[in-house]
Amino acid sequence: MNESILHSEIFEQPAALRRAIGDSVKAVRELVAAAKARDVRYVVLAARGTSDNAATYAKYLLQITCGIPVALAAPSVHTMYDAEVDYSGALVVGVSQSGAGEDVNEVVARAKKRGAVTAAITNTPDSPLAGIAEHVLHCQAGVERAVAATKTYTTTLALFAAIAAEWSGSRELLTGLETIDTKTVVALNCEERVAALARTLLHAERVLTVARGLHLCTAIEASLKIAETTYTTTQAFSSADLLHGPIASVAVRTPCLLFVPNGRTAAMMDDVGAKLADRGARVLRLAPDAVGPDTLPLTDPGTEYLSPIVDIIPAQLLAYHLTVARGLDPDNPRGLSKVTVTR
Amino acid sequence: MNESILHSEIFEQPAALRRAIGDSVKAVRELVAAAKARDVRYVVLAARGTSDNAATYAKYLLQITCGIPVALAAPSVHTMYDAEVDYSGALVVGVSQSGAGEDVNEVVARAKKRGAVTAAITNTPDSPLAGIAEHVLHCQAGVERAVAATKTYTTTLALFAAIAAEWSGSRELLTGLETIDTKTVVALNCEERVAALARTLLHAERVLTVARGLHLCTAIEASLKIAETTYTTTQAFSSADLLHGPIASVAVRTPCLLFVPNGRTAAMMDDVGAKLADRGARVLRLAPDAVGPDTLPLTDPGTEYLSPIVDIIPAQLLAYHLTVARGLDPDNPRGLSKVTVTR
Repeated sequence: MNESILHSEIFEQPAALRRAIGDSVKAVRELVAAAKARDVRYVVLAARGTSDNAATYAKYLLQITCGIPVALAAPSVHTMYDAEVDYSGALVVGVSQSGAGEDVNEVVARAKKRGAVTAAITNTPDSPLAGIAEHVLHCQAGVERAVAATKTYTTTLALFAAIAAEWSGSRELLTGLETIDTKTVVALNCEERVAALARTLLHAERVLTVARGLHLCTAIEASLKIAETTYTTTQAFSSADLLHGPIASVAVRTPCLLFVPNGRTAAMMDDVGAKLADRGARVLRLAPDAVGPDTLPLTDPGTEYLSPIVDIIPAQLLAYHLTVARGLDPDNPRGLSKVTVTR
Repeated sequence: MNESILHSEIFEQPAALRRAIGDSVKAVRELVAAAKARDVRYVVLAARGTSDNAATYAKYLLQITCGIPVALAAPSVHTMYDAEVDYSGALVVGVSQSGAGEDVNEVVARAKKRGAVTAAITNTPDSPLAGIAEHVLHCQAGVERAVAATKTYTTTLALFAAIAAEWSGSRELLTGLETIDTKTVVALNCEERVAALARTLLHAERVLTVARGLHLCTAIEASLKIAETTYTTTQAFSSADLLHGPIASVAVRTPCLLFVPNGRTAAMMDDVGAKLADRGARVLRLAPDAVGPDTLPLTDPGTEYLSPIVDIIPAQLLAYHLTVARGLDPDNPRGLSKVTVTR
């Protein structure tokens, strides 16, 4: 059962992270130097799907560690409305594993014309996106064949973390990045516990994922992974937004994956977990100190800033094992193709 | 059955819009003049819940009509991580009907200290938020008592449209705003058709809402309205993101509300509708030319830019009528309070 492409690619992540971080040092340094030399005031990230979830990580990380405002682009502003947005003073980063998405490429091309510093994070260094951007960071993940992206997601996070480390000079980030690949090896050890939990979710029609702050990306990406492989209805929430309305619709016994990594969000997450439990939801707690049923262990990478790189791993494995437990094909979800080109 | 507060407030929208637009002319002019005088390079919007959905409208509208980049703030960057973000060169707008949300207020207060131009859009002009911001735009919606926000949503959209009109000098926007209140009167005429459709959704456990571009806010707000009043599981998608994975999880007979207003997105939306129908989903098409079963009429306000102000109305009515059809209380959803204070 473990011969699927998806499963292999999940386990290729430690090696891919090592390559992504090791081989990008020079390109990251040049990108940050150019951004500072050209007086960049804010950052715009253009991405779709899983890459957009990685951009959500960067939105928090760059603001927190570098103090620079970050916007997620709305590509249709250009592709559908032909808007001329003035990106002077911006660093615009296109994020796409294939580098083939016309809408993302359009944002980067227009920004370049308007004087922005431009960069690409891609797993395809000879892609159109890489040809447009001035600076190219390569995920070095090797070809990703499963439709559900895993190793391109975590390597993209690592490249954003490398940018943040270089930009801010944060020791915490620099030191953490040196060992992040070995931490993902530890995280992969939870597979048996994940498989056991997956079997208890066989008949779940709806799954919620909840996180906060820097870890929101983990909830969103976990939600997408489970939805696209298992066809479960999933919804991702910031714990703050959940309390602003949607909690009303959480039915009794709904499984809620709660991400509680060490750091600033932990106390609040447990508070939200208690509120969900009060409503009769089934709270599945992912935390470094997780013991007992309905929990999964998270690996502490030594700094909260890098937690999302390891925390998504149990969720990737959960998507995989739930898919297999349901007798579905983890490598070829119905109606999806690897490269989705949207305009 | 029509004596609920929610129902009354839905029908108060034409008058509220008239007041919001008429009374804000001077404040809007001063805000835009200040932003231009102080060389604003980009806009940051801070909001939660329904106000965040209104901010999504502004994210598209301001970029399309004014060519200025727009970011949605991540308040927890400040409240949980104490980040010092450099907002120089920014216009920062806090959006909150109550003006009491600590996290939104924190973003605006910090931005003001860092030299940003600051503004508030609020229905409570003596609120803490209004006290912090340099410029205050008042929704003039009257007290909103139903937990599900309706008139504060549409008046907030109108105030953003007024900012865009003043900033861009767009005749199309200025002319459209003059009659937008009467267009909402027309939109409210669809109530009987909405009530009939609501009865066919009595047993729906899951509803999808789909739109694109400038109209994404309508899908997101419709999704929230239906979720918080009827306890249905709802999910809102940009049609582009839907094709990037989540479409795999759309089961046969799932009702999908498709917003197809006149304008740039219409052809693509009908294409997505065909894909959803191919998968066996039940497509409920909202469009100006809608006839026949499983459709609802939209009102054309003369310009696509203002469509979201009228297009949400059938969805508000649908949330109301589905709530009543299910024997639930539209005014007091379980477990929610009117003012949610998150940090």
